Amino acid sequence: MKRHTSSYSIVLRLRYPDRPGMLGHLASAIGEANGLIGDIKDLGVRQGDITREIVVSACDAEHCERIVKRVQGVPDVTVLETADRTFLVHDGGKIEVRLKTPVKTQDDLSMVYTPGVARVCRAIHADPASSFALTIRRNTVAVVSDGSAVLGLGNIGPVAAMPVMEGKCMLFKGFAGVDAFPICLDTQNVDEIVRTCEYLAPTFGGINLEDISSPRCVDIEEQLIEKLEIPVFHDDQHGTAVVVLAALRNALKVAGKDLAAVRVAICGAGAAGAAIARLLLSVGCRQIVVCDRAGAISRDRSVGGNRVKRWIAENTNPENVTGALADAVRGADVFIGVSGPDLLKVEDVRRMAKDPVVFALANPDPEIDPDAVLPYVRVVATGRSDYPNQINNVLCFPGLFRGMLDVRARRVTESMKIAAAEAIAAAISEDQLRPDSIVPSVFDDRVAPAVAKAVAEAAVNAGVAVGAVGAVG
Amino acid sequence: MKRHTSSYSIVLRLRYPDRPGMLGHLASAIGEANGLIGDIKDLGVRQGDITREIVVSACDAEHCERIVKRVQGVPDVTVLETADRTFLVHDGGKIEVRLKTPVKTQDDLSMVYTPGVARVCRAIHADPASSFALTIRRNTVAVVSDGSAVLGLGNIGPVAAMPVMEGKCMLFKGFAGVDAFPICLDTQNVDEIVRTCEYLAPTFGGINLEDISSPRCVDIEEQLIEKLEIPVFHDDQHGTAVVVLAALRNALKVAGKDLAAVRVAICGAGAAGAAIARLLLSVGCRQIVVCDRAGAISRDRSVGGNRVKRWIAENTNPENVTGALADAVRGADVFIGVSGPDLLKVEDVRRMAKDPVVFALANPDPEIDPDAVLPYVRVVATGRSDYPNQINNVLCFPGLFRGMLDVRARRVTESMKIAAAEAIAAAISEDQLRPDSIVPSVFDDRVAPAVAKAVAEAAVNAGVAVGAVGAVG
Repeated sequence: MKRHTSSYSIVLRLRYPDRPGMLGHLASAIGEANGLIGDIKDLGVRQGDITREIVVSACDAEHCERIVKRVQGVPDVTVLETADRTFLVHDGGKIEVRLKTPVKTQDDLSMVYTPGVARVCRAIHADPASSFALTIRRNTVAVVSDGSAVLGLGNIGPVAAMPVMEGKCMLFKGFAGVDAFPICLDTQNVDEIVRTCEYLAPTFGGINLEDISSPRCVDIEEQLIEKLEIPVFHDDQHGTAVVVLAALRNALKVAGKDLAAVRVAICGAGAAGAAIARLLLSVGCRQIVVCDRAGAISRDRSVGGNRVKRWIAENTNPENVTGALADAVRGADVFIGVSGPDLLKVEDVRRMAKDPVVFALANPDPEIDPDAVLPYVRVVATGRSDYPNQINNVLCFPGLFRGMLDVRARRVTESMKIAAAEAIAAAISEDQLRPDSIVPSVFDDRVAPAVAKAVAEAAVNAGVAVGAVGAVG
Repeated sequence: MKRHTSSYSIVLRLRYPDRPGMLGHLASAIGEANGLIGDIKDLGVRQGDITREIVVSACDAEHCERIVKRVQGVPDVTVLETADRTFLVHDGGKIEVRLKTPVKTQDDLSMVYTPGVARVCRAIHADPASSFALTIRRNTVAVVSDGSAVLGLGNIGPVAAMPVMEGKCMLFKGFAGVDAFPICLDTQNVDEIVRTCEYLAPTFGGINLEDISSPRCVDIEEQLIEKLEIPVFHDDQHGTAVVVLAALRNALKVAGKDLAAVRVAICGAGAAGAAIARLLLSVGCRQIVVCDRAGAISRDRSVGGNRVKRWIAENTNPENVTGALADAVRGADVFIGVSGPDLLKVEDVRRMAKDPVVFALANPDPEIDPDAVLPYVRVVATGRSDYPNQINNVLCFPGLFRGMLDVRARRVTESMKIAAAEAIAAAISEDQLRPDSIVPSVFDDRVAPAVAKAVAEAAVNAGVAVGAVGAVG
């Protein structure tokens, strides 16, 4: 399934004699090496030689090298520089802090800093809640990770996790205008993480937990929700669950099935799998079986001290299905994978109920090849951008936090998550709804505002909004 | 000493009949109430009535109210709205997070986030030091406070301290391009603050401690310097000391005195007073007496468990001066106040050595009225912007951190502080040097780059620079 991707793309800076036919030779050479050409820039001609920058996408790092070698072999062409575009984008970090008003005069300085700032401090001291109006708290979220479960990379630690958290902050701002700041913590102790977040709370209007391993993430989130007056949301759990629910609503419409009646097999008994099961239960789905590596989790199976799996055992699988994943999938209407590559077989899918729905969300390599399974299912979705139906958390978290900050929600309720899911699902009209069109594009700019509005209203209805809709923002 | 200040200024939105003479009436009324008029804006005429916004500066909050009342009394004038300009500037916070590159396409997304980001994470995991190139660490400083000693307001706590820390972050960015983020901690326990900063370290390239009470701030800074590989700098101590040293260099040139020979009396035995004494000692100043409320600190006086005062007792006052502040000041060449209002009397100053230098830095009200003392001194300086010779930390910290980040300094050495002071002092040329011109304006944009360059070179010379000058940035 290796495809060309801009995440493996390079910028070649080349110099060669500026004569007809040269670019053709070059482009052909790159094509022969299976490189996909993007932008080509003319950087000027000097003494008969032209300098150009050519962007080339490849499939992996080794492929990049092969392309460069091939270009170096073209007569009269000098490769001046090769830059990895992804690393270029990350150079020096991807976000920055900006002033909302300039500090150019003594007047400015005496208002934003001493002596004027003292009055604002005194006002907040007298009424601490005013910090949600008079400081960055009104619009700022911490993206907190300990680097223990980063993407598919595992426990790479806080420093190596930073690029992901910075990227997340970009999405918060880019998609919903939320100021987010990465906080990568040099501890993986649950109590220390909780305590640190408590200490950090005066600075922020909300906390997005990210890439913390299961079941620790559940403990951390639960304790923080209990202790803090600002919303705490572990995106890997609930963001995934929200977008899965949105996609499932539309997939079942396509398949002509009812959520309350379908049988669901979830592969992956981590925090995401449990959160999906919990959210599906809360909207009336009943027949859910969750599998881990050892197979279906049931009341009769020992799950040791893992509290997430214990919750799954106690709250799902009413018919006490046992056996391997293949057994849980047999006769199921829906498969939801939040596990690892290639765990689902085509023959398993062929034993599912009629018109099955398969969400193979493991990243970057899904539980099953979506192309291979397509003939046997009504709807297939993945987490990948290069297939239709991308189930991506970015559909949820920016709008969710936007809505919560707008009404100063104290916490996230199940009703707010469901409202977010409904808003995402509703972005696909009846006209647009097709087996390969069950969720909006991540770049559909109607989604975040719709999610924000729905979440803000749900927060008000749930009685967790300290500010009224429209009062702040 | 009450003066008009933009930190007490209001925007009046008014409506009145648009006829000749009306603005004259209005302006006169504001003048009668002793209001100082700034910008006047025409917001349009409708049905013969004009709407205007008028900016008016006052001396304090009560004065603002008096002005509004007076304007309300002008016939035919309706006050539509009164807004406090300082609060307007703080509304919703003063800084924001911005993307350095846009995320508009699938291409962008796959480079800044998954799947492309994974390669960057792996690169940092393999070489953690590369985080100083590939993440915001390269240019980002935490401004950490526990809100225990904010401005002259005292222990107002972390939430109320936020506006100051945000303001500080503006100055970092505005004056030296350093991305700074406020971190206000909901704990005042020394060990917890140290531990939290350790946990936060993977996110930042440096830590600026701010407004933490003495002597706790000294403990915190010392422990963090020991534990972290990024520079930690408590601005209230060392930033003040650096700018005082810069100002003193130039003041003594004006007075024709030698730093090694002068007698210095410091009023204020907190962390700032001690840091000033320490830096002056390190450049060869010998005769320093530090006073607290109880008078001169000497080897013979008990200072209890206060480690800052113990250090002062052991390292200053070689002649064992005893008695009150007035005794320490008698015959001194230099007075440096980092204490509170009105502690120094004119008669004390008249008993100083010939051509004395008085730095009365307590904010907002100095140790002595600079106008009252002017006839008796060669040089007087304060922390205030409305008098000549403003000794303001903003001359130091932006450039200092700029220089440290540029060469990835691991820590701050005495030599780097001295280099910063020399660079600030050198911004005043021999031509410009006068009794009322010993330090550059805080808006002199040559200062931060000069400080940065000097600090970077000093860091390289001290062997604490991990990157070479110019290698990063």
